Amino acid sequence: MDLNAGLGESYGSWTKGDDAAMLPLITSASVACGLHAGDPVTMLDTCRAALDLDVTVGAHLGYPDLAGFGLRALEMTFDDLFGAVLYQLGALDGVAHAVGASVDYVKVHGGLYDRTVRDAEQASAVIAAVQAYDPGLPVLGFAGSALLEIAREAGHPVFQEAFADRAYLPDGTLLPRSQDGAVLFDAAAVTERAVRLAVKGEVEAVDGSVLRIRPDSLCLHGDTPGSARLAGAVRAALEAAGVELEPFA
Amino acid sequence: MDLNAGLGESYGSWTKGDDAAMLPLITSASVACGLHAGDPVTMLDTCRAALDLDVTVGAHLGYPDLAGFGLRALEMTFDDLFGAVLYQLGALDGVAHAVGASVDYVKVHGGLYDRTVRDAEQASAVIAAVQAYDPGLPVLGFAGSALLEIAREAGHPVFQEAFADRAYLPDGTLLPRSQDGAVLFDAAAVTERAVRLAVKGEVEAVDGSVLRIRPDSLCLHGDTPGSARLAGAVRAALEAAGVELEPFA
Amino acid sequence: MDLNAGLGESYGSWTKGDDAAMLPLITSASVACGLHAGDPVTMLDTCRAALDLDVTVGAHLGYPDLAGFGLRALEMTFDDLFGAVLYQLGALDGVAHAVGASVDYVKVHGGLYDRTVRDAEQASAVIAAVQAYDPGLPVLGFAGSALLEIAREAGHPVFQEAFADRAYLPDGTLLPRSQDGAVLFDAAAVTERAVRLAVKGEVEAVDGSVLRIRPDSLCLHGDTPGSARLAGAVRAALEAAGVELEPFA
Amino acid sequence: MDLNAGLGESYGSWTKGDDAAMLPLITSASVACGLHAGDPVTMLDTCRAALDLDVTVGAHLGYPDLAGFGLRALEMTFDDLFGAVLYQLGALDGVAHAVGASVDYVKVHGGLYDRTVRDAEQASAVIAAVQAYDPGLPVLGFAGSALLEIAREAGHPVFQEAFADRAYLPDGTLLPRSQDGAVLFDAAAVTERAVRLAVKGEVEAVDGSVLRIRPDSLCLHGDTPGSARLAGAVRAALEAAGVELEPFA
Repeated sequence: MDLNAGLGESYGSWTKGDDAAMLPLITSASVACGLHAGDPVTMLDTCRAALDLDVTVGAHLGYPDLAGFGLRALEMTFDDLFGAVLYQLGALDGVAHAVGASVDYVKVHGGLYDRTVRDAEQASAVIAAVQAYDPGLPVLGFAGSALLEIAREAGHPVFQEAFADRAYLPDGTLLPRSQDGAVLFDAAAVTERAVRLAVKGEVEAVDGSVLRIRPDSLCLHGDTPGSARLAGAVRAALEAAGVELEPFA
Repeated sequence: MDLNAGLGESYGSWTKGDDAAMLPLITSASVACGLHAGDPVTMLDTCRAALDLDVTVGAHLGYPDLAGFGLRALEMTFDDLFGAVLYQLGALDGVAHAVGASVDYVKVHGGLYDRTVRDAEQASAVIAAVQAYDPGLPVLGFAGSALLEIAREAGHPVFQEAFADRAYLPDGTLLPRSQDGAVLFDAAAVTERAVRLAVKGEVEAVDGSVLRIRPDSLCLHGDTPGSARLAGAVRAALEAAGVELEPFA
Repeated sequence: MDLNAGLGESYGSWTKGDDAAMLPLITSASVACGLHAGDPVTMLDTCRAALDLDVTVGAHLGYPDLAGFGLRALEMTFDDLFGAVLYQLGALDGVAHAVGASVDYVKVHGGLYDRTVRDAEQASAVIAAVQAYDPGLPVLGFAGSALLEIAREAGHPVFQEAFADRAYLPDGTLLPRSQDGAVLFDAAAVTERAVRLAVKGEVEAVDGSVLRIRPDSLCLHGDTPGSARLAGAVRAALEAAGVELEPFA
Repeated sequence: MDLNAGLGESYGSWTKGDDAAMLPLITSASVACGLHAGDPVTMLDTCRAALDLDVTVGAHLGYPDLAGFGLRALEMTFDDLFGAVLYQLGALDGVAHAVGASVDYVKVHGGLYDRTVRDAEQASAVIAAVQAYDPGLPVLGFAGSALLEIAREAGHPVFQEAFADRAYLPDGTLLPRSQDGAVLFDAAAVTERAVRLAVKGEVEAVDGSVLRIRPDSLCLHGDTPGSARLAGAVRAALEAAGVELEPFA
């Protein structure tokens, strides 16, 4: 099982997240590429640190919207999004390359993540760009999303992730963050769900039904001290359950 | 002899320069990489157009300053500039790669060009980044600049350019643009200087003395209709004089 | 009748539109405020030029998206949009004040214009901000839009504009630009419609039905040489028809 | 005596400084205006919070450089800087006005602060803009700076600040941050210097000589938990020494 998290989300004089705490816990780091977060020096430092700990580096692709941290839906055309993906991928690759690292997967961020769960136009633009860049570069995404579906149809390698700390609806989508109970904070519940996802490939939905997911990766968060601690608990529980942790890519 | 010009300097809804007129005239296109000008779609279009006409693509590296078009000196640290160079190089490489083109040289732009004529710290940061990216990637720069000097000392391949439309001081530097006569607009004078630079490797300075330069490339401009016409006259004059035009890289 | 156009849409080294040609033709200038277009110097120059020609200055409020020129829908929260409106209004007011001009109305731009035709949340945020800034500051908008409706309900002064060069649907909305015939280029047709709108307060929809609009202002465009010429023809036709041209505000 | 600090330096999803801890300690808040830090919502929140605690609001004017947090010298022309000052002043004023607050002084930030200690051109641009905005709006600056000198010559109201936690050279300038001992961290030393500055109007320079300054305000910092605690100690010491704390403006 792979454990992934978004890293390198600082910008200039502003820091964000506890990358130092998260890096030893994860096997794959999705690194921001400068358009929604991340500046060149942060990208360099994050790639170096990931390399030191044998953590796989992926490109965390977002909307060009620093003010909104890439969280807001943006009505980008196919061409603009195609270009923005190539730009970000190349920029991170250039930076990673200079420190001896490499970009081994891609994942979309925030508003683009939410949008490409269903929006075929934006999903197609992302996949077309990744294909144009490297047809063998794995895409990590949400199980059942338009993004992964379109990638699969194009013969592109895909891997799917699940969330141990998010409530699932019976159809396999996530309960929106705006609703009560969308995010689980109880360490016992989250670690139990993480182990069940990793060992049995299943998670209980909000109506009590059981979803089969078989994730290639679990997504962890490190935005707050509390979330980094929770990530540590998840990793410890997985190791105690005998789950072997290694990069999916 | 190579003829180079800065291209791809549009941004979003704003256009700049007459790239369509310039591309058939030049052999090397220095393409803006998004930090001082150029957006991903403009970069894609420029790389495609250059490829179609067998024009070599280079990365035109600038300060991160869209509002100032990269023309204003910016006090960047070594690390920030090192990162910014890698970021721009990688971004353009990613875009170029997707359309089947490649980035075959680098040149610095505007305020960074002027600064690295003498500033060893910023020049070192640029060269260190280019070295880290690709020790074989040629740097095109101003003859006698700190940038080329530092690159040469590092064993990095360098090529030097000259300006047929700029007044030279006896020490080989350019008369600053703020002074009268800094830029030549007379087509006859400019083409005569271009041919002399290409054929004899020399140019007359403002005091009448003759400088020996032996440029690998002449820099043309296409910002205005007038400048694109002048560029055409220079190319025609060089061809009439039997100068073979081909990319330096 | 008022004639309005978007002005001051240059940014840094990039110019846009033919403001010099448009200013003598219009009575109200909607000036970009720096978030989707317009930089402080452009704002200063535009305010000065408008003042010289007795053209009323309004704030052209847009999404914070330079790369997209404010044309793309952006999912902004009420608070973020409320803040962005105040920020832009204040910035233009500060600049205008310094040259002896004043900001006498507001209009929304591009993606925000299209969005607030129907989106009550974003329309409410805009109106709440304008109310907080100055409850007497007129809002110029699209007849029948949520924006004007919400402003009216709040007791805020509103004025409505019409387009002589756009095709109307029978329900009073515009035929989307993506469809054939959305924009009229024929000078005779456009000027005829302008005069009919100004004199009779009516316009023919695409199905031949006649809409009653009674605009306070007609919106002109000056993005291209052709559009500026067309704007001149519209003004001449209105004057020939005896329509008195004066700012609505 | 006034106590001032830079506040509202968060940006979008990134937070900076401990404004909640600092606001009760100070009498004047220099609020970032969006070009080097601060977004409209942060500006709104900061103005509201300052108003609640009767803290005077000033505009903290910086270079347009989010990536560099306004700390890097930028070669701006007179016109560009003149415009940037008006833009920031107006933007903050618009935001402040909407919540019932007002902008009662200006101070320059970071790289612009350092530059205008000696650079008469940039200092003149700042003062000219503030004069054009409001000839009665006080400027808070460094004692002996070109900025205050030029303002005084223009008949503009000026106030000067001193630093209890910075080492002074015998000529009244600060020991650059790059040098050892430039910043004092020892609470006892800093509070002692603060009291001496407030009560006697003097500070000991690095060579043991005593400088007379007579500050109107002491500048405090709240970037780190440690600095906010130190600011609290300074305030407590001043109160214990019977110094009355009130806004200078």
